[in-house]
Amino acid sequence: MDLQELVDAVCADVGGHLGRGRVADYIPALARVDPRHFGLAIASVDGQHAAGGDADMPFSIQSISKVFALTLALDRIGDPLWQRVGREPSGSPFNSIVQLEREQGIPRNPLINAGALVVTDCLLAGGTPDAAIADILAFMRARAHDAAVCVDAEVAASEAETGFRNASLANFIRAFGNIAHPVADVLATYFSQCALSMDCRQLAQAALYLANDGIDPRDGEIVIDAEGARRINAIMMTCGHYDASGDFAFRVGLPGKSGVGGGILAIAPGKAAIAAWAPGLNDQGNSLVGALALERLSRRTGWSVF
Amino acid sequence: MDLQELVDAVCADVGGHLGRGRVADYIPALARVDPRHFGLAIASVDGQHAAGGDADMPFSIQSISKVFALTLALDRIGDPLWQRVGREPSGSPFNSIVQLEREQGIPRNPLINAGALVVTDCLLAGGTPDAAIADILAFMRARAHDAAVCVDAEVAASEAETGFRNASLANFIRAFGNIAHPVADVLATYFSQCALSMDCRQLAQAALYLANDGIDPRDGEIVIDAEGARRINAIMMTCGHYDASGDFAFRVGLPGKSGVGGGILAIAPGKAAIAAWAPGLNDQGNSLVGALALERLSRRTGWSVF
Amino acid sequence: MDLQELVDAVCADVGGHLGRGRVADYIPALARVDPRHFGLAIASVDGQHAAGGDADMPFSIQSISKVFALTLALDRIGDPLWQRVGREPSGSPFNSIVQLEREQGIPRNPLINAGALVVTDCLLAGGTPDAAIADILAFMRARAHDAAVCVDAEVAASEAETGFRNASLANFIRAFGNIAHPVADVLATYFSQCALSMDCRQLAQAALYLANDGIDPRDGEIVIDAEGARRINAIMMTCGHYDASGDFAFRVGLPGKSGVGGGILAIAPGKAAIAAWAPGLNDQGNSLVGALALERLSRRTGWSVF
Amino acid sequence: MDLQELVDAVCADVGGHLGRGRVADYIPALARVDPRHFGLAIASVDGQHAAGGDADMPFSIQSISKVFALTLALDRIGDPLWQRVGREPSGSPFNSIVQLEREQGIPRNPLINAGALVVTDCLLAGGTPDAAIADILAFMRARAHDAAVCVDAEVAASEAETGFRNASLANFIRAFGNIAHPVADVLATYFSQCALSMDCRQLAQAALYLANDGIDPRDGEIVIDAEGARRINAIMMTCGHYDASGDFAFRVGLPGKSGVGGGILAIAPGKAAIAAWAPGLNDQGNSLVGALALERLSRRTGWSVF
Repeated sequence: MDLQELVDAVCADVGGHLGRGRVADYIPALARVDPRHFGLAIASVDGQHAAGGDADMPFSIQSISKVFALTLALDRIGDPLWQRVGREPSGSPFNSIVQLEREQGIPRNPLINAGALVVTDCLLAGGTPDAAIADILAFMRARAHDAAVCVDAEVAASEAETGFRNASLANFIRAFGNIAHPVADVLATYFSQCALSMDCRQLAQAALYLANDGIDPRDGEIVIDAEGARRINAIMMTCGHYDASGDFAFRVGLPGKSGVGGGILAIAPGKAAIAAWAPGLNDQGNSLVGALALERLSRRTGWSVF
Repeated sequence: MDLQELVDAVCADVGGHLGRGRVADYIPALARVDPRHFGLAIASVDGQHAAGGDADMPFSIQSISKVFALTLALDRIGDPLWQRVGREPSGSPFNSIVQLEREQGIPRNPLINAGALVVTDCLLAGGTPDAAIADILAFMRARAHDAAVCVDAEVAASEAETGFRNASLANFIRAFGNIAHPVADVLATYFSQCALSMDCRQLAQAALYLANDGIDPRDGEIVIDAEGARRINAIMMTCGHYDASGDFAFRVGLPGKSGVGGGILAIAPGKAAIAAWAPGLNDQGNSLVGALALERLSRRTGWSVF
Repeated sequence: MDLQELVDAVCADVGGHLGRGRVADYIPALARVDPRHFGLAIASVDGQHAAGGDADMPFSIQSISKVFALTLALDRIGDPLWQRVGREPSGSPFNSIVQLEREQGIPRNPLINAGALVVTDCLLAGGTPDAAIADILAFMRARAHDAAVCVDAEVAASEAETGFRNASLANFIRAFGNIAHPVADVLATYFSQCALSMDCRQLAQAALYLANDGIDPRDGEIVIDAEGARRINAIMMTCGHYDASGDFAFRVGLPGKSGVGGGILAIAPGKAAIAAWAPGLNDQGNSLVGALALERLSRRTGWSVF
Repeated sequence: MDLQELVDAVCADVGGHLGRGRVADYIPALARVDPRHFGLAIASVDGQHAAGGDADMPFSIQSISKVFALTLALDRIGDPLWQRVGREPSGSPFNSIVQLEREQGIPRNPLINAGALVVTDCLLAGGTPDAAIADILAFMRARAHDAAVCVDAEVAASEAETGFRNASLANFIRAFGNIAHPVADVLATYFSQCALSMDCRQLAQAALYLANDGIDPRDGEIVIDAEGARRINAIMMTCGHYDASGDFAFRVGLPGKSGVGGGILAIAPGKAAIAAWAPGLNDQGNSLVGALALERLSRRTGWSVF
């Protein structure tokens, strides 16, 4: 299969749907993004690349960053992480606090906000938010093979100003002793991590290790061991789209992670990493046209793992 | 890979764990099963078979039957089924009624008890429980290519006597109008379906269409269309082990469905169907040694979809 | 204070509101009641009676019967009842099943449906539904000093036909072992008890023992000991209007119990029992004009216990 | 009845129980209180006073302060307060966040922590925490007729250091827009208010207006209108002991409010205000011996409102 033909075909598939969905509006930097943008990029384990639409336009990757933060945390502390966060779908929205009360401050999985805050707490490891975010940024630049990856300071600041729900989650977890660092530090790091600005090409390249048993095929770097990579994919499959994870598995059949900025990262194990971006969201807060594009791509390629 | 060598190796892997877990004891027929049994069978899409341990000993497949009932219901009524039952993990135990109240009688997915009762209601289709269970039995015998598959009448009767929780779920759903037939008929059919008695060989053979895009490779029968088969696998992956589905995906990496009788069915898409059986259950009600065997099998084969 | 003048004044107070609210429509016998009815009756501990409007028109007392069933059960089995049902407000609607799952089949209080089903199970005491309902009927006739009190067979039959939610609750409780008799017997008794047909005069008279430390002032009968009567009043205050109990306490300041037929029974301890009836319900399922009448009565008399 | 004889009798009643329960240990200042303390004070509307045990020993009134803050807030903004906080029992523990998510940031009532934070937000009214706490302190001193009432700075500081759960609640409510001031200001005020240090005599005197239709009988000051006072009593009855409110109503039959410092304030409308203190708490976080004392007092006096 020619990847560029595939990308072009999928771009054509969704052409009539551009602009659908509702752009996130809780911070100005997201609210003013034109909903008609659409980008798609594929990086394959055998070194091919293809891109279409606005694949070179940076966007706020938001919760997609949770996948990379999880990789870093697993690499650093390994299995003990699972004492502090579960790996089960929550059956609840991304920012729900209900289960946290029932389950005594142990978040259901690392891809909902509560779990991601615990992962971020791990990444702080006694250091400052600046040091932690520098680590994350260095990791992203290395994996994207592109020093242009950066944190959007305006987005990070806006998140901090309006992030009462995340502050509530972090304080709640802290009350149960499952966050070790000052809540303000955890939040500062988390908001910066979510404010990573990347384009589809960078994102697909950065995640390629997940499609290749943990090894970045471009430079042979062992980012995480093979089992770790498979486990991250498993968690993306069952938990990556919050309370719409089942629907994404049903329709697309690939491990994926969405962000409120309209991005979706999907992994075709053994084959490729795919990044789609379209700012309009569906009712569950996932990119409407992005999911549609991945559904078409999955049908055209047969890459569904099922 | 030689399948029989694989089966033998996995049997050896779990040999030291036989008898672990707690056998279901809510009905006598299950309670008296020796916890040290263990069976494993594989049927591959290219026609190979392998079996080990107690693979020829029939057991009560219980909730594994939900996968076959779902296949039949999708074949009969297609997508309108999704108006009546969701396809999201519930994040709750198999018999939870909480979400049913919040979500107005629409079960989260067809593999929890509530959803399976709705599926069974579809299979009744205006007919009698006897007719419905005859259809299910005919289907199972055809797919297992074995007329010996039967319903264990003692188990079905015991389920009916003690099935207050299922009666509660069915009445609850009926109160919201999402069950059309008399509750007693739905329950009678459901209890018989769960009381299907099969051995690992039969079960692996019967499910092989799910590993082969919906076609039974033994006779070429199109059991369900390819997309339907993939969707069922997706639902097994995200929902097949109740509130331990994430853990199964994480450890085994295959779509699977467990039953309280100690059976687990797993699908390696494009490759094989696997049935494991060990009566002792873990805290979430899934076969402890069965899951362990599938974890070892997945590592030995690299069949994880991730 | 002249009680008849009081009743007349309250009738005048609510005259402009008659017909407001929505009549219960889940069974035909309730749905066809004219929403403009309004009745009010007061029986005082010193032997006075007053009535106005449709105080002589029988209506379905429905959940108000729970107060009398509780009296009977406490009289028979005493404090051990509190091992099987709590005495806390549930914070949930009358027919909610959520807390029952969290709290292992122990209903929060005897005035929500779940709790009332447990109370009814106590009243069966090994006997038949016919015997139990005969006991309840005998009790009501004795307390109302009126042999005309009866069970409306049409209402009872309709409840049985549509009572899936109650069947769900009873089966759920039975699954936890907190109902001892066959579910069908409990439901049959419960539906008959709820179908008691009484008018405001009868109802006020029947409940007078609750305003008089457990003694019926008309014949000196010790219906329940003084502490028991106070406790029932306490439960009516905190739980008598489901998830609107706080509002009723706030506005009326008297222990009260509502029924979906539009009746409300209120107790002014040491003073009187009051029955109001208006079929139109508010959003919480309590009589809209009935509550309004009791609010006015409370203000006019200063009978609020607060 | 001679009040002092009553107090002495109740002190004797509970003498054998002193030291029971578990002292709150989440902050040092509470943890080091001797569990064997017990104090009791009554102030009657006709000007009598009686006290026994450690009635002159100041303790941290904690959540009892919510009753006075509610009085102040109702006096200032009146009924619009009920747009921001409900008046229904929550059926949940004092610090639960579950219902807040379901009900979009509107706390169930002003006597759980979430509701009290909204009340505190009202008291800030655009001013500083220092100004707000000065207002509260002035109110308490005026009502206690004792300038010695003070805020325990050590307690307030400890609460601030460990108050992650309250910080979580405040941020959560703020996320829904139902807190207007900076979260840090609301928390600072709230922690100081909870750290009010009073003895039983002061507390009984301070709350006497609630037993007297809103008027302080000592100086004739109209603290709140009569209906407001009754409403506060109603809320204390249905919500004053969190998820043990029903039990307190059942056993004591008086509106009451507990604090984690071991204090309980109870109101006998038209008669007296009573303050009991014993540091050991029961499983619901209410004073074990304090509740026992009030139960005995209620039986000895017949002051139960039921």
